[in-house]
Amino acid sequence: MDPDKAVKLAAEVDTDLAGRLRFIYEIDRLKSVLRRNMLADASRNENSAEHSWHLAMVALAMAPHAAERVDIERVVRILLVHDIVEVDAGDVDIYDVEARKAKEVEEIAAADRIFALLPEPEASELRGLWDEYEARETPEARFAYACDRLQPLLLNLGTGGATWHARGVKSSQVKAINGALAEGLDGVWPVAERLIDESVADGSLDP
Amino acid sequence: MDPDKAVKLAAEVDTDLAGRLRFIYEIDRLKSVLRRNMLADASRNENSAEHSWHLAMVALAMAPHAAERVDIERVVRILLVHDIVEVDAGDVDIYDVEARKAKEVEEIAAADRIFALLPEPEASELRGLWDEYEARETPEARFAYACDRLQPLLLNLGTGGATWHARGVKSSQVKAINGALAEGLDGVWPVAERLIDESVADGSLDP
Repeated sequence: MDPDKAVKLAAEVDTDLAGRLRFIYEIDRLKSVLRRNMLADASRNENSAEHSWHLAMVALAMAPHAAERVDIERVVRILLVHDIVEVDAGDVDIYDVEARKAKEVEEIAAADRIFALLPEPEASELRGLWDEYEARETPEARFAYACDRLQPLLLNLGTGGATWHARGVKSSQVKAINGALAEGLDGVWPVAERLIDESVADGSLDP
Repeated sequence: MDPDKAVKLAAEVDTDLAGRLRFIYEIDRLKSVLRRNMLADASRNENSAEHSWHLAMVALAMAPHAAERVDIERVVRILLVHDIVEVDAGDVDIYDVEARKAKEVEEIAAADRIFALLPEPEASELRGLWDEYEARETPEARFAYACDRLQPLLLNLGTGGATWHARGVKSSQVKAINGALAEGLDGVWPVAERLIDESVADGSLDP
């Protein structure tokens, strides 16, 4: 039996349930989408599914540093769904501004397809969380975005800048992109900036 | 720079923040803990970090099937932390009853160590969620456990029972272990049982 057959058999009994199972199988593919950064032990690249789990944990661990009053539960749900479109659209390098622009249309099409696999109201609820993250207009979305800047920064710092070197990323770019975390997290950027400067000093990041 | 150095430098500025960063680095290791089941496309074994993300998504997708009234946000947080002890204790085969018993002491020691890396109140909050999952005495813990039975079952079914065969797991064991999902999920077990029977019929699971 493969996932298609399992969903087909389920649909003979309960089409609503079959839609939920289809969604569960479909998002399993996020585990095969590789990101640019590596794990903290530099053993391999991180995938977007485990990254999403880690971000949700970062949100729980960093909650007292939220720059605004946030509903931490909604932050967690935003982070759980924020990369699901990569099942269709793939991951894009945060330091590649052109590629990120080009990806937008593809990501919206992916959101239209994937969340709609679920019955309502879950389809609209999860899609709404993704839209909220993309718009970055709520305290929850801003805090979630800040967590999504902090976590890869920590992994890149912890691996001696392995993938920064490979991509020719410089200190000024790292600061420009990740400085945005100060909009969602209080009291973290001065420490992060110190770690970035130390990485320049020890040669793991180009000035 | 490695994670230890990053945490040490952070601690020179802010020991509370350094504890949070230490926790974030430490749980990164859950991405390297491999489980018995494979991904739905049978490309490789699943790890416990991406599994935890998938379970949180299963909870959101299956919420209307909860057998009892549950706080779905707490279910999500329970599932995010439920396997973190495997950073120290490793994953254990659900079909190996002896090994599961032997693991209990090790898992409690792991919980004592890992959650305490965080400052309070987050250390006690997250530890409480793990204790709640283990005790299985609340509707949220029972629903979380049911999700943790459904997801690997779906992956095993979807890969034609690849790792069932390898471990000599039989249909009666699959039903005995996963039948427990009916305690947390309504209207799912009859469909799951049908898929299990179909897997016996097509030869991917031993009777």
